[in-house]
Amino acid sequence: MTTLPSWKDKALFTPGPLTTSATVKQAMLRDLGSRDIEFMGVVQEVRERLVRLATNSDEHTAILVQGSGTYGIEATLSSVIPPEGKLLILINGAYGQRMLKIAVLHRIDCESLVFPENTQPDATALESVLEKDKKITHVAVVHCETTTGIINPIEIYGRIIKRHQRVFIVDAMSSFGAYPIDLMACGIDYLVSSSNKCIEGVPGFSFVLAHKDALKATSGFARTLSLDLLAQWEGLEGDGQFRFTPPTHAILAFRQALLELEQEGGIPARAGRYSENYDIALSAMQAMGFKPYLAEAVRGYIITSFHYPDHPNFNFKEFYERLSDKGYVIYPGKLSHADCFRIGHIGRLDASDVTSLMTAIDKTLREMKIFMPEIIEE
Amino acid sequence: MTTLPSWKDKALFTPGPLTTSATVKQAMLRDLGSRDIEFMGVVQEVRERLVRLATNSDEHTAILVQGSGTYGIEATLSSVIPPEGKLLILINGAYGQRMLKIAVLHRIDCESLVFPENTQPDATALESVLEKDKKITHVAVVHCETTTGIINPIEIYGRIIKRHQRVFIVDAMSSFGAYPIDLMACGIDYLVSSSNKCIEGVPGFSFVLAHKDALKATSGFARTLSLDLLAQWEGLEGDGQFRFTPPTHAILAFRQALLELEQEGGIPARAGRYSENYDIALSAMQAMGFKPYLAEAVRGYIITSFHYPDHPNFNFKEFYERLSDKGYVIYPGKLSHADCFRIGHIGRLDASDVTSLMTAIDKTLREMKIFMPEIIEE
Repeated sequence: MTTLPSWKDKALFTPGPLTTSATVKQAMLRDLGSRDIEFMGVVQEVRERLVRLATNSDEHTAILVQGSGTYGIEATLSSVIPPEGKLLILINGAYGQRMLKIAVLHRIDCESLVFPENTQPDATALESVLEKDKKITHVAVVHCETTTGIINPIEIYGRIIKRHQRVFIVDAMSSFGAYPIDLMACGIDYLVSSSNKCIEGVPGFSFVLAHKDALKATSGFARTLSLDLLAQWEGLEGDGQFRFTPPTHAILAFRQALLELEQEGGIPARAGRYSENYDIALSAMQAMGFKPYLAEAVRGYIITSFHYPDHPNFNFKEFYERLSDKGYVIYPGKLSHADCFRIGHIGRLDASDVTSLMTAIDKTLREMKIFMPEIIEE
Repeated sequence: MTTLPSWKDKALFTPGPLTTSATVKQAMLRDLGSRDIEFMGVVQEVRERLVRLATNSDEHTAILVQGSGTYGIEATLSSVIPPEGKLLILINGAYGQRMLKIAVLHRIDCESLVFPENTQPDATALESVLEKDKKITHVAVVHCETTTGIINPIEIYGRIIKRHQRVFIVDAMSSFGAYPIDLMACGIDYLVSSSNKCIEGVPGFSFVLAHKDALKATSGFARTLSLDLLAQWEGLEGDGQFRFTPPTHAILAFRQALLELEQEGGIPARAGRYSENYDIALSAMQAMGFKPYLAEAVRGYIITSFHYPDHPNFNFKEFYERLSDKGYVIYPGKLSHADCFRIGHIGRLDASDVTSLMTAIDKTLREMKIFMPEIIEE
């Protein structure tokens, strides 16, 4: 068996790649042939476990796609919308905007409903557009917009979309594995996530949970070879193989990560750990005078955006580097209209790691001579 | 430090994923943030080392692209050919055909010169087409067609293509790192290869060595977001980051693999080891009565196709499984017109591994009661 390396990597309070367990990484200390029966068994196991995390029914299937999460999103958008189809995107952040960019590049007829980054897309607006525009065939939304950490109510959208008999695509990149999602209850036809998020695997591939009937109806729609979702599924279902060289090591790590998710107690237990990470971080940050960007009602426990402190000594680059030197990696902001940074609550980190980060932040503020007493007194 | 796992994986005599060194895999026992300065330094080092393997000039740059080798090919074809451009593909195997498929999917105006799988594409035919068809802007060819193992003379093609001032794209997937390639001497504008081939890294990404001036002239040509080659380069050159989550672990393994390539003595030494693997396998296989598919003049030392033996007891599936049970993974054929299987000579394997494989093949033939005395006597 393996022992840990002698160095200790920085703790990653980011949206991914994340800190993973030693055993997940050790699962990569093997070289399996991509056509080998053992490897094909691992792929099959991973696909079955993924489906079972999101539904008890047999209407959905799992497709693994080499590349990052964005590849999975592009694979879905460029493969499942017919040439004469029309996509409606609900946007309240950078990842919704990215879907729009992909649709435009592939010349997919597209409309978007854009909302402020601190606001959930309005379900009434969605319903009214679906009623008016009968050309719309597909609706896409991000579940947890990593831009801010906001959680969008996909079950509410799903009920409306299904009532109007449209296809529902959900970017659950940073939420899948951490928030319970029922594909049937949410009416989701395509859910996209990635190996290096809340399942706590290493980066290397994305996956799509697809409604089989919807998927089977997409023959001839794919606009690329590498990202052809139906062909990828047919390969995995047919001879059990990827069409092109799979990231064998990342998939071995992912299988281990799925086992460890089960051992932890599944999604409810993981949600509990991440929630606790979030609670500890939020209260400590607020006690130090930091203000979260989002209102409490829409805030999730995946990642939190905090406003830069209103203090002349604050400089994000210096703040980031001082924390990094102490062994803690946080994340810059991605907002259009506000200066924020982000702290992630996901990955193989627990209450003691978060507490250590909070101590390091407190120390860093002192080093930078940033005092926010007026807020502390609130 | 780490120790080896207690199991021993099968030796992979395949075109990849390959057997890699223990130290390459151990380099993955870390979690680095994708925006972390240490990781960005690794990416920069990898990119510089890749360029230096293929040229001493500063006219080329390296771009890493998440996904398998095919992703790198599709990134190149879909990003560097202008809407009004025309691509000529020299085809003598499945990977040339795959480029054609990609071009057609992206509606790129395309012509192909198709040659038998056991024949190098004819340089005279290339020259005559370039003379006749002034609409052709780009020419693409596979260096080592993994379909058969044939080596195509890219330096000869390159001189013709440059004389006619066209852009030259080379799929060097299974040759780069094993065959010396001089980008300038071959007039290569885009060379595509992958992490899990002759550099002996793990699968997870492809890379493109691009002529900077050619690349800079491709603004607005990309037909996808994920596989936008110029944007990917601009990201790596700009803030040093991938646009989308990179396969951090596979990149750490690749940096180690590049160091080990250097330690081995660079490409000449690796070419020597692979050639020796090939020589040992070929003479032992011939002594057992197997016939190579290709004529000696065009055969490479990456992978060799052997005809199925003309014996009633031979069944490839059984042959493959008996070898696999003994710990040796070979590869099925991919030919249109002949029943062959393949044996790879690449990866972290040496003369003793090949000799062991040959002993296992001999034993397997006896188990299957396959005797080829008439050939042995030749």
